[in-house]
Amino acid sequence: MSHELNEYKGRSVLITGGAGFIGSNLARRLVELGDVKVTIVDAMIPDQGGNPFNLDGIEDRVTCHTANIEDDYVINHLVGGVDYIFTLAGSTSHIDSMRNPRRDLELNCAAQLAMLEACHQFNPGVKIVFSSTRQVYGKPLYLPVDEDHRVAPPDINGIHVLAAENYHLLYYRIYGLRSVCLRMTNVYGPRQLLHHNRQSFIAWFIRQAIDGEAIELFGGGQQRRDLNYVDDAVDALLLAGASEAADGEVFNLGGDEVSLARLAELLIQLTGRGSVSSVPMPPERQLIDIGNFYSSYSKIEKALGWRPRTSLRTGLQRTIEFYRKHRAHYWTPHARTLS
Amino acid sequence: MSHELNEYKGRSVLITGGAGFIGSNLARRLVELGDVKVTIVDAMIPDQGGNPFNLDGIEDRVTCHTANIEDDYVINHLVGGVDYIFTLAGSTSHIDSMRNPRRDLELNCAAQLAMLEACHQFNPGVKIVFSSTRQVYGKPLYLPVDEDHRVAPPDINGIHVLAAENYHLLYYRIYGLRSVCLRMTNVYGPRQLLHHNRQSFIAWFIRQAIDGEAIELFGGGQQRRDLNYVDDAVDALLLAGASEAADGEVFNLGGDEVSLARLAELLIQLTGRGSVSSVPMPPERQLIDIGNFYSSYSKIEKALGWRPRTSLRTGLQRTIEFYRKHRAHYWTPHARTLS
Repeated sequence: MSHELNEYKGRSVLITGGAGFIGSNLARRLVELGDVKVTIVDAMIPDQGGNPFNLDGIEDRVTCHTANIEDDYVINHLVGGVDYIFTLAGSTSHIDSMRNPRRDLELNCAAQLAMLEACHQFNPGVKIVFSSTRQVYGKPLYLPVDEDHRVAPPDINGIHVLAAENYHLLYYRIYGLRSVCLRMTNVYGPRQLLHHNRQSFIAWFIRQAIDGEAIELFGGGQQRRDLNYVDDAVDALLLAGASEAADGEVFNLGGDEVSLARLAELLIQLTGRGSVSSVPMPPERQLIDIGNFYSSYSKIEKALGWRPRTSLRTGLQRTIEFYRKHRAHYWTPHARTLS
Repeated sequence: MSHELNEYKGRSVLITGGAGFIGSNLARRLVELGDVKVTIVDAMIPDQGGNPFNLDGIEDRVTCHTANIEDDYVINHLVGGVDYIFTLAGSTSHIDSMRNPRRDLELNCAAQLAMLEACHQFNPGVKIVFSSTRQVYGKPLYLPVDEDHRVAPPDINGIHVLAAENYHLLYYRIYGLRSVCLRMTNVYGPRQLLHHNRQSFIAWFIRQAIDGEAIELFGGGQQRRDLNYVDDAVDALLLAGASEAADGEVFNLGGDEVSLARLAELLIQLTGRGSVSSVPMPPERQLIDIGNFYSSYSKIEKALGWRPRTSLRTGLQRTIEFYRKHRAHYWTPHARTLS
């Protein structure tokens, strides 16, 4: 990893959604690296994940813009002169996307189009890493799911993220704009949105365990998922950004699979609190339930040498420790401006 | 066909994009059938295909609205009380979509979302037929292309139409909104947009032959395509609308394959005019060229008994006859209001 990271020395990096969960962890890593000019743009849209505390301690070492990348003039300005763009902006909420599909279209499609058009016109040499999601696959036909698996997005959010992926691949193919798509699986760790439960079930489980509440498992929690600790996801983003071989490619991330029941059990064990209750899956969930899901990450392992390095136990321990210490900044909605 | 068409007797039908090529041919067929209440909405967006002359002779037997279905209040009102909606609105231009991706997003994604939301809220019992395109497949991996072929849209337009298809399938699966997607191949015939060449190469060939011009064929025109005469496409729309078995399904249309060179030769023969010139394919076309393409239509043939009935020669004869007679209404941009 250290060798590839040298690519970023002396370079300029823009992170969209940089005050959010993965974006802020990425920003911190780049700052630690030293000699990287890090610029963050985040619209701080309520309930999306942007949180000023996520940048605590690095505020003076990054340039922050509270701005909306859907605005042409904003993004046209911001892409100028940067060497790398990591696009972590966008909504990831299944529920929000079904309640307000038009808003999801703006956040996930219109914003990516505006950014790609800006790069095409004003910075055609930039390298872009687009964070996508395993949601685009829908209900798996086989496991583990590899990149050749058919896509069948199970919700509005998945439809729009798939369209955004297609934009990136198209701009690479037609205009030579260098871009790579990473299909993230369930990512967890410090700095995730925890004040509502519409974004990530894992984050919500962690909060419930810390609070000593009952974690509700649909039908006993036998569904299997693979999880990535956020530092591992950040590794993948940085490797994909530094690699020319990744241009125009789509890669799964992925990790060891675990049942939700086992995950809850681990959380209860590590926090010493919480409990589990099994509830029937509501009919509206059954309609969108994708059953077991875990990804094959052998393509990115072969191409970029990436694999997850943090065990689930270690990742959860670090996560719990972080939220116990900084609970006040995550349990309720945060103030909405960057310093 | 006659038996299935009885389904429409005494019913109310909304056609979006109803002043356009396929929409107006569909409206005329429904009017001929008698005892069908036909409502047309068309935004008459310049260069998209809406043409008041397309409704010549049936103006008094259809209700026309010049309105934009992207506006919630318009579409919320229009979907009320109708039994069928045929969605022919939307852009189909590869070139326009690459020049103004944001506009294509509005025309193809935002408009379909607005319509589906309107139906979900105000008319959940309606049956919708969505006209999609073979463009969603991109460059074929095998021929003929069936519905299991992977999708890989080669342009912005294809990306957005694929997203719109996914909306329709999703609203069916989650909300039970009855919808079917037809992936049209190259459709030709009377009432197509002919005043510019950004929508359909076949229409442009027809115009050039009638005008005695040289039809330019890239690399000699050995690329193979399948074509459908518009009456056959209208048959498929009506069958898909009348069939409960079609709900939630995606069907290809398709027809006999022909090389572009053979198509040009036929046009020259039928018009007694025009010529052919072979030109090298420009590099920007090579990037998006999909090579040979023709579809398998065996799924819709088995499920709905559809197959194309008009030979290429007959279809082209009728088309040439129509444009020779009504040339004035198609060779230049038309006035932009419906009567």
